[in-house]
Amino acid sequence: MSDQNRGKIPTIHDVARIAGVGIGTVSRVINHSTGVKPATRQRVQAAIEELRYSPNLIARSMISRNTGAIGIIVPFFTRPFFIEVLQGAVAAITHMGRELVLYNVETNDQRDRYFRDLPGQRKVDGLLVISLSPDDVAASAFRQAGMPVVLVDAYHPLLTSLVVDNIEGAYQAVKCLIAHGHRRIGFINGVTEGNFRFNQANDRLIGLHRAIGEAGLLFEPELVLTAPWDRQGGKQAALQLLARADRPTAIFAASDVQAIGVLEAARSLHLSVPADLSLIGYDDIEMAEVLELSTVQQPMKRMGELGVQKLLACIGGTADGEFLPELIRLQPSLMMRHTVIHTAPNV
Amino acid sequence: MSDQNRGKIPTIHDVARIAGVGIGTVSRVINHSTGVKPATRQRVQAAIEELRYSPNLIARSMISRNTGAIGIIVPFFTRPFFIEVLQGAVAAITHMGRELVLYNVETNDQRDRYFRDLPGQRKVDGLLVISLSPDDVAASAFRQAGMPVVLVDAYHPLLTSLVVDNIEGAYQAVKCLIAHGHRRIGFINGVTEGNFRFNQANDRLIGLHRAIGEAGLLFEPELVLTAPWDRQGGKQAALQLLARADRPTAIFAASDVQAIGVLEAARSLHLSVPADLSLIGYDDIEMAEVLELSTVQQPMKRMGELGVQKLLACIGGTADGEFLPELIRLQPSLMMRHTVIHTAPNV
Repeated sequence: MSDQNRGKIPTIHDVARIAGVGIGTVSRVINHSTGVKPATRQRVQAAIEELRYSPNLIARSMISRNTGAIGIIVPFFTRPFFIEVLQGAVAAITHMGRELVLYNVETNDQRDRYFRDLPGQRKVDGLLVISLSPDDVAASAFRQAGMPVVLVDAYHPLLTSLVVDNIEGAYQAVKCLIAHGHRRIGFINGVTEGNFRFNQANDRLIGLHRAIGEAGLLFEPELVLTAPWDRQGGKQAALQLLARADRPTAIFAASDVQAIGVLEAARSLHLSVPADLSLIGYDDIEMAEVLELSTVQQPMKRMGELGVQKLLACIGGTADGEFLPELIRLQPSLMMRHTVIHTAPNV
Repeated sequence: MSDQNRGKIPTIHDVARIAGVGIGTVSRVINHSTGVKPATRQRVQAAIEELRYSPNLIARSMISRNTGAIGIIVPFFTRPFFIEVLQGAVAAITHMGRELVLYNVETNDQRDRYFRDLPGQRKVDGLLVISLSPDDVAASAFRQAGMPVVLVDAYHPLLTSLVVDNIEGAYQAVKCLIAHGHRRIGFINGVTEGNFRFNQANDRLIGLHRAIGEAGLLFEPELVLTAPWDRQGGKQAALQLLARADRPTAIFAASDVQAIGVLEAARSLHLSVPADLSLIGYDDIEMAEVLELSTVQQPMKRMGELGVQKLLACIGGTADGEFLPELIRLQPSLMMRHTVIHTAPNV
């Protein structure tokens, strides 16, 4: 990049000047119109690259600046955790008189396609991305395209990110079980699905290790299982843990839906919760309250709501094409209900 | 329309011929380009009207024929009933390698705007509309625009519609309670929200009347309450019913989420279900199984899945711009679990 252009957002006029063509020609190249000679096209493209010119920034001010819609990219959106985050987001979007367009992601391919294509398409004014962390290339592309993006339950240094301290949450849950005298604690973690929730699962394991280490207990790897983030996953893992001769007296599950599976496994084995088995879940979805499940509460509705508020602030503040990424840490909290009781130590 | 054009889909050439202009001029009128004399514009528009020519059918084959995306318009999508219909739809969409764009509706205004704007915008190849019945104007506009639309849990004679026989479902539920000796049966119905689910609520009431009438029982209007379609609504209505000196021995709730509220109300009053109160819900959402709730099962996943399959068939079959609307009736079925027991008659 030549010195005179450094630090300044390049315009279509800069591209035209450097390429030695008119702005109409630049526009035709950008819009893939016919009638541009290959050599000219190459010269324009070289100028675009040299200047790091982003036609989308211009396109944005040329076409309708405001679609009135917020896009949300979310994996497996029908799962309870995502539904509750989405409830908070929908409330904030509706409150602001905006519309929601939801892009569901089931595969890595889909995620990558949305990350690549949505910023340029300008169907929405901004994107809320839930539980999916863009890589450096995608994050830079969002910035480059001038598309406001806020991450929820995910992190990238270039983008405003809302994260929950899940290490702390898992630590508190396991510490609580230890304080209730439990020594053999089973842990049902979530599997990583296309790396979608890798950190979320990993953080819970770190929290478990911290609580166990702090109490001077031995980590027993055979009591740690990974299972799909659903009822069936939790149930199967619990059946495996509870079939052991030295079965755990307590189970910590990485999500409430898995904990509900643990309740079903206990019921099928005629074990009573909490008399025979203490249980702590994670998330505090609506059903946890109905089932009186003790759990680690993530502020899900708040995450969705705050995410939208931050996004709207980004959208409002991008007139100059710049916004500073923020990192917001939210704290989980232990909700004690009726699935944890004291057990005699050294059982 | 002149006889020679009857029964044939008009083309841009027909419009040009009748208006006495070239197809370029027709195109300019359609695209609101400048440089067309007012008199010519009027002649072209008169020809378009006479032929009932729909430029979108043409635009559709001119622009990218296939976006690869299916749009779903759904009210309050985070409610369990919709989530389970959406799960079936997502599975079918993913299976076909398509993408889902979800438009959430919270108000009548939003619904009307989506109905009006989405067909023309061509962001999606077809629309699945859940639990929202378009009026005649909107339904005609969908047809006119050549946008394939399938309704699920809603009906319009111009559009392929999947409906569940909720009169039958409610009839079976109440008949079952009567067969178990119940005579004082409370009914918690759902409120109509901007007419979104008017028929759904009305149909359940008709089914109740039929069962009561058939058994020769007296309809007791004070045992019928309407409440919001959520836990809190069900709980408040149940508290009201159960506070009566002559409290009902059984409750039928219009949705499982309301029935869960009834369970919570009973728990707070130290009434045991089913010993003190029999209960039947409606829908058979996932939590009904966990809570062992007897309920009327709607084939929700099947509705979503079949809706998408019918929609894809419409999309594939619209090369000639025509598709015949189908009315598909699905049957609900009574799922007996553990919340209904026999009570002595004449209690």
